[in-house]
Amino acid sequence: MDTSSSSQVLLPPLSRVVVSGGTHGDEMGGVYLVQGGAPCLKRTTFTAQTILSNPRATEARRRYTEADLNRCFTSASLSTPLSADSPYELRRAQELNRALGPKGGPGAVDVICDLHNTTTNMGLCLIGYSTRDWICLHLYRYLQEQMPSASVRYLVFEEGEEGSYSLESMAKHGFAMEMGPQPQGVLRADLFFQMKQAVTHTLDYIELFNTGTVFRGGGVEVYRKVCTLDYPRDPHTHQITAAVHPQLQDRDFCLLSPGDPLFLTLAGGETLPYEGETPLYPVFVNEGAYYEKNIAVTLAQKETVLLPPMSVQRE
Amino acid sequence: MDTSSSSQVLLPPLSRVVVSGGTHGDEMGGVYLVQGGAPCLKRTTFTAQTILSNPRATEARRRYTEADLNRCFTSASLSTPLSADSPYELRRAQELNRALGPKGGPGAVDVICDLHNTTTNMGLCLIGYSTRDWICLHLYRYLQEQMPSASVRYLVFEEGEEGSYSLESMAKHGFAMEMGPQPQGVLRADLFFQMKQAVTHTLDYIELFNTGTVFRGGGVEVYRKVCTLDYPRDPHTHQITAAVHPQLQDRDFCLLSPGDPLFLTLAGGETLPYEGETPLYPVFVNEGAYYEKNIAVTLAQKETVLLPPMSVQRE
Repeated sequence: MDTSSSSQVLLPPLSRVVVSGGTHGDEMGGVYLVQGGAPCLKRTTFTAQTILSNPRATEARRRYTEADLNRCFTSASLSTPLSADSPYELRRAQELNRALGPKGGPGAVDVICDLHNTTTNMGLCLIGYSTRDWICLHLYRYLQEQMPSASVRYLVFEEGEEGSYSLESMAKHGFAMEMGPQPQGVLRADLFFQMKQAVTHTLDYIELFNTGTVFRGGGVEVYRKVCTLDYPRDPHTHQITAAVHPQLQDRDFCLLSPGDPLFLTLAGGETLPYEGETPLYPVFVNEGAYYEKNIAVTLAQKETVLLPPMSVQRE
Repeated sequence: MDTSSSSQVLLPPLSRVVVSGGTHGDEMGGVYLVQGGAPCLKRTTFTAQTILSNPRATEARRRYTEADLNRCFTSASLSTPLSADSPYELRRAQELNRALGPKGGPGAVDVICDLHNTTTNMGLCLIGYSTRDWICLHLYRYLQEQMPSASVRYLVFEEGEEGSYSLESMAKHGFAMEMGPQPQGVLRADLFFQMKQAVTHTLDYIELFNTGTVFRGGGVEVYRKVCTLDYPRDPHTHQITAAVHPQLQDRDFCLLSPGDPLFLTLAGGETLPYEGETPLYPVFVNEGAYYEKNIAVTLAQKETVLLPPMSVQRE
């Protein structure tokens, strides 16, 4: 057993808290939440700030206008000199980094909760870059406890500041909050109010932390990205030649074993099985925005992370 | 009882049959069906032609590039002189009208089946402009009989050639085939193969008609558009201030009565009821593509249409 689970971790209070939406302009939950639909943002120890990340894409009701903003926050992109040809989203990323960062620096905001929707059946899923960010992981357990009827999960994309590319990576403790399924450009009331509730709980949690609550240690289950699979494609036209199999569609977080149906060919209706060597958990199954990224399915493994007891560091 | 139901109607054979997809470039069922996923198109009396209606929008995986192609087929639009500023889709509409029309003229193709997807829970729905097009209405009943596990419905938008604006209105007998729910830019295998099956049955039906089958008379239920309702909006920003109510979401074709929940406000979570005077059937409930058209819900009434017996006119 990891000894870190028994010795209490003390962390600085969280005073600068940002809730961002519209990082993708067609994911309407976050867009409408920050544009007039937010819950109360004020607590005794802080007032959260809302930000519309990509106003131009939101205006166009599209994911992005010239480049995917949520891939523009690598250290390399943030330090690239701008020219007349630079995409709007790169300019906007650097602008946000001046306001909320600098990424990795002591002046960066404490928390960014970046709101997203997915066309996939992923329920409520936090996405982070680390299994050592105790603020994010204790929040994850807190949300599971507060929202027992929701399926709250935690997905770890990659370790390390080097590889991190998304908006929330500017913060000392950043995470994306995904909610699905919801088509792009559509607002579903059920998901909107669930997102609003999750944001309220997030702010409550930060308040509890700041005011001295001791969060107990223990294990939480997380999913760690292992690899992605593309659709079968025509080698010349690059067009897809098979769809995600109906037996996999909507089955995010349901174990996929070698030999299970993966794709169904469009011309012949032939089933193509999953040919991996080990069972893994599929996520972002048939996500609309990922066709252009050559991702039909992301595969993850399940791990248990031992959380240490945690409380705020007194001055 | 309408006497037209007892005297047999004789109609000319159908030899020029078109199956079109990609009229909206992000409705992927039709796109992939005409791009390599089509069923067998050959019968003894005709061979159907497939057409990708809007190649540019399909390439961009968007509904349209400069104007909604499926609103460009009014007689006025088709006769508008083109200029350097004309939207791509208007040029394309006139090009298609030269190839498949001219709309309303004797040289127009016999049948256009225009394939669409919707983000709404409308199942398989044919959309036409008339309750007197016996070819389309007998097809409707044929599909209901052949696909008993699908909910096949028929929606009538407006009567008359004057008001018709969509691609299939170029044909002597045109209809749109809608299938949902499916997010834009996503292909769901289950819906794709259901669409493919419906197209196969459509071609079989035309073959049966051409080879002398007598289609019996009788009643069919259709839905006729009455009006549309917009989302509540901020008068200054025009931004929506309420979402479709969870009790209405996904309930296409389920009767909406005065007083039933219609919207839920985003800021306060207040329920706004349907204030119409008569119960009506909602369709295209919270369709992603209709936010820009100021349509939250389309309301329809249910009617019974009496079909006359029908068969092909011998030479």
